[in-house]
Amino acid sequence: MDKNIFRNLSYGVYVVTTMDGMRQTGCVANSCMQITSDPAVVAVSINHDNYTNKCIKESKSLAVNILTENADMTLIGNFGFQSGKDVNKFENIPFEWAYGNPVLKDSTCGYFAGDVIGSYETGTHTVFFVEIKDAEVKSGTPMTYAYYHKVKNGKSPKNAPTYLPEEKDEKETPGKKWVCSVCGYIYQGDIPFEELSEDFVCPVCKQPKSVFEQK
Amino acid sequence: MDKNIFRNLSYGVYVVTTMDGMRQTGCVANSCMQITSDPAVVAVSINHDNYTNKCIKESKSLAVNILTENADMTLIGNFGFQSGKDVNKFENIPFEWAYGNPVLKDSTCGYFAGDVIGSYETGTHTVFFVEIKDAEVKSGTPMTYAYYHKVKNGKSPKNAPTYLPEEKDEKETPGKKWVCSVCGYIYQGDIPFEELSEDFVCPVCKQPKSVFEQK
Repeated sequence: MDKNIFRNLSYGVYVVTTMDGMRQTGCVANSCMQITSDPAVVAVSINHDNYTNKCIKESKSLAVNILTENADMTLIGNFGFQSGKDVNKFENIPFEWAYGNPVLKDSTCGYFAGDVIGSYETGTHTVFFVEIKDAEVKSGTPMTYAYYHKVKNGKSPKNAPTYLPEEKDEKETPGKKWVCSVCGYIYQGDIPFEELSEDFVCPVCKQPKSVFEQK
Repeated sequence: MDKNIFRNLSYGVYVVTTMDGMRQTGCVANSCMQITSDPAVVAVSINHDNYTNKCIKESKSLAVNILTENADMTLIGNFGFQSGKDVNKFENIPFEWAYGNPVLKDSTCGYFAGDVIGSYETGTHTVFFVEIKDAEVKSGTPMTYAYYHKVKNGKSPKNAPTYLPEEKDEKETPGKKWVCSVCGYIYQGDIPFEELSEDFVCPVCKQPKSVFEQK
């Protein structure tokens, strides 16, 4: 069985947001699909290891923010490569409210929000079924998962269902690039990487300089 | 609530195949996503009105064929715009076997197949959870749902969760095109539509000449 087949499924890139008690939180997801049209019910899959999973189970409500192609990669780093258990992901993120959930003001072509009406548990992920009560369309082209990988050079967190170890590109010359071992960000600044301050953090996942590897 | 938001979700275009007793059958679907990586579990949503839904419930097994961008629209017509209850959809379709299910030999960049291990019922659709046991990658670029609509001018059957009445394009001159009222195929042959034989059928959905409307 060739698991690379799953690379051929098509997805978008979403930030799923909810409330953690009185605090806003959320995570990145790509597994989201509409199930019924009237009432509008959507399925969203979230890993058990994502803090957002626990928060959705408690709040029984969520919003899906549809990222646009020009969304900044630091937004994905903010929501996708750190845990809402440790940090306030909304600290520097402009947001508004939709059906009791925080929704991003920027970098999205819209959102929908509603109540969790059911769920299905698997070994690693919960599939939430959400009846949508509020939705707004904004301008912009939705970012596809393929675009995120091919054009934006994005990586998958290890708890994504679509995660596969990266294939080695044998055409590349080793030892020329500094790559974040956590999120895959490739340093491309003008200052040589070795000369960067020790305070330098990955602009995508906020990890320290020490996690970068020369590849 | 603006339901047009659901147009901004990203999907692929798939033919879901299974057995109807000793007979091969299947339908077109776009709502398919991977849920877990190990074991590989995928969710597939199929409308109750699709004959394939009943067949999957009985066979407890299915395959997902991932269509490529160059897949012929008649293939989508064959599987998407007629019922396996009435016709043998595999009559003219070359296929091979994968885990007891028929899979398409052409127009796909691969398939995966396995056992239904659970399901979730909604008002109109069943979401099947399938543990994948066999998969093969073939060459080609996966067709996205956006590509199907924008480049191939494809339409959605009325029982798709993503179905929305088509928006009128006010730039178009009315009365110039013959359009299939069932699947949206636009006749573009050299012979004037009025002069076509009464035996003419829509090449996509096989409906008779009488269902065409001038728009």
